[in-house]
Amino acid sequence: MRILVLGGDGYLGWPTALHLSRRGHHVGVVDNFVRRQYDHEMGVDSLVPIAQLHQRVRRWEELSGKRIEVLNGDLTDDRFVSRMIDEFRPEGVVHFAEQRSAPYSMIDRAHAVYTQVNNVVGTLNLLYAIGEHDPSVHLVKLGTMGEYGTPNIDIEEGFIEITHKGRTDVLPYPKQPGSFYHLSKVHDSHNIQFACRIWGLRATDLNQGIVYGQETDETTMHEDLATRFDYDAVFGTVLNRFCVQAVVGHPLTVYGRGGQTRGMLDIRDTLACVELALLNPPEEGEYRVFNQFTESFSVRQMAELVAESYPGRVRIEHFDDPRVEKEEHYYRAAHTKLLDLGLVPHLLDEKVVLALTDVVLRHRDRIDLAAIAPSVEWRSTSSPNHGRRRG
Amino acid sequence: MRILVLGGDGYLGWPTALHLSRRGHHVGVVDNFVRRQYDHEMGVDSLVPIAQLHQRVRRWEELSGKRIEVLNGDLTDDRFVSRMIDEFRPEGVVHFAEQRSAPYSMIDRAHAVYTQVNNVVGTLNLLYAIGEHDPSVHLVKLGTMGEYGTPNIDIEEGFIEITHKGRTDVLPYPKQPGSFYHLSKVHDSHNIQFACRIWGLRATDLNQGIVYGQETDETTMHEDLATRFDYDAVFGTVLNRFCVQAVVGHPLTVYGRGGQTRGMLDIRDTLACVELALLNPPEEGEYRVFNQFTESFSVRQMAELVAESYPGRVRIEHFDDPRVEKEEHYYRAAHTKLLDLGLVPHLLDEKVVLALTDVVLRHRDRIDLAAIAPSVEWRSTSSPNHGRRRG
Repeated sequence: MRILVLGGDGYLGWPTALHLSRRGHHVGVVDNFVRRQYDHEMGVDSLVPIAQLHQRVRRWEELSGKRIEVLNGDLTDDRFVSRMIDEFRPEGVVHFAEQRSAPYSMIDRAHAVYTQVNNVVGTLNLLYAIGEHDPSVHLVKLGTMGEYGTPNIDIEEGFIEITHKGRTDVLPYPKQPGSFYHLSKVHDSHNIQFACRIWGLRATDLNQGIVYGQETDETTMHEDLATRFDYDAVFGTVLNRFCVQAVVGHPLTVYGRGGQTRGMLDIRDTLACVELALLNPPEEGEYRVFNQFTESFSVRQMAELVAESYPGRVRIEHFDDPRVEKEEHYYRAAHTKLLDLGLVPHLLDEKVVLALTDVVLRHRDRIDLAAIAPSVEWRSTSSPNHGRRRG
Repeated sequence: MRILVLGGDGYLGWPTALHLSRRGHHVGVVDNFVRRQYDHEMGVDSLVPIAQLHQRVRRWEELSGKRIEVLNGDLTDDRFVSRMIDEFRPEGVVHFAEQRSAPYSMIDRAHAVYTQVNNVVGTLNLLYAIGEHDPSVHLVKLGTMGEYGTPNIDIEEGFIEITHKGRTDVLPYPKQPGSFYHLSKVHDSHNIQFACRIWGLRATDLNQGIVYGQETDETTMHEDLATRFDYDAVFGTVLNRFCVQAVVGHPLTVYGRGGQTRGMLDIRDTLACVELALLNPPEEGEYRVFNQFTESFSVRQMAELVAESYPGRVRIEHFDDPRVEKEEHYYRAAHTKLLDLGLVPHLLDEKVVLALTDVVLRHRDRIDLAAIAPSVEWRSTSSPNHGRRRG
């Protein structure tokens, strides 16, 4: 298949592009490198050094004999997006190209507006370009399990059958997102569903859980192929943070009571899920949602798993939660559709944690502990400590 | 109360400002006059001539002795919005200041993106300004019944109790909007609800039906106080169009089978609803939704009502529906919350239709029939006939 990976220089975009290339697809990577710019803005960096995209692609061609095309452009530039679809003529488009950090979107007004405009307009431009040039293109869009929030009933995959006052309908699952970033994904989902309805587009919305892991079969072939490892308070995720804290002997910082429960998955399963979605496209006009995660854990459980797995002594400490979220809640979410397509999950266990702490140990000298302290406060319209943290 | 009316130069904003001023509130009107700019873009005009805002306000002061403040600015300008809240110090903000036409949002990519960015960013800026300067300000936001679409179950007011697999929760009512404009209102609703949750803001989302009528107790006091009457294919609404067609002897144009059913209300009830919402604010942190309409009619029923009410001979013709919507469907929507607060509805009957056709007859020489033909096609990513219509 001819596949465009939008945001193909990022944490998941790059390994996805490699994986699809290795599996024999013709891959084009699109990026505007703004993810690297956020690092400069925050004064942080990936724990694992990452090569420039052009170097990554050269190395991949050298090692695999396979060519990945590079397109440099911004999805909010509608002429670029239109030309991209018109000239590359993809059969599938995998869309990772959004600002993906909840804390980043909550820094202040400017970051909230940037996140929503960047994400929503980029996706609108893409929908229009596909609708205009080739409505048969399959859009595989990265959404998030965070779109659902934490309702007190089971979460289904995108839609729910509701019986109300004696009548029944299947309706979009109600959304209760927890940041302006998560809200941008909810806006996208509504826009995409509508475009499928009016123009007959086909789209898969992957409501992804929190991804952990840094190594895939392809990224480990050469250090130039490595992908990011983020552990800072803005772009890092909780398991990465715990692994870094365990290695340096800092207490694992659990926010609030730690009962916050989220769907999680291994980075290798992300690649498998995206390919499964591409190989099994929806019907013309169909908007479908897959919940893309393999297991649920509470923050407390993850901390305990790291503490038990890591050979050194590990303490767990509780801090005030900077987010506005339920610290204990019901959580059960369906995730059978990708399993039905053949996904064989990598589950989270001691071995996976040790592989992660191994990555951390190899790059221990690059750890910046100051980057871990939360600097963005949900309860305030601006975060005066953010940016001053490093001063 | 100190009340800001955003979009106070528009069809509903202006009569609302007059009504609130007459009722003794201290009113400020905010507008950037873009609604008048759309008229120039489309080459259309209000059937009833409308005075400039400054002239309107001068005339009102002369007749009533009451002063309405005028603030000229754009909600997408965050510094203006922040200053507006900081300096006027409102207790209530009535937010009409959005691009409000579904067909306008469906003209092409640029109009879709404009509509969503204008509406979503304007409201985000407002939420941040309120959160920053005074979280006790009551935001009364105009949404639309079109956010719900036409589900096969009863529509409730914003939230629905769902029992699923033995558990129960009250969740946001699922949304199935029918244009990029309606989608922008759904995005707003999600953003506002979140801001109430994290910052303790208080907001009333008025999911308004289709408004008809042009005269209120205040606008009829002088021709300088008149509000708009739109009948064109882009900004006009169906009852206005039928009245114009009846007067000129053109068949009433029903799109599709005409079973499309919508909630409707009299312009005088809009004013009453807004004031009722203001006088009965929600609690701190509360996001509430009122369905603001008084009766439901199908397009066919409205055509028949006009045909029966108007003294001349009136024919009804069916045309292909330019929108993607169900032409026959179940429709029952709750609307008790405003009645519970004391709303006494003006219902739609022959007398109301004759008052409308009277307005049309008085301005008959200004009718431009070419403006009525639909030029925007939902099924296409662009509308090549739009703009060429008048060439």
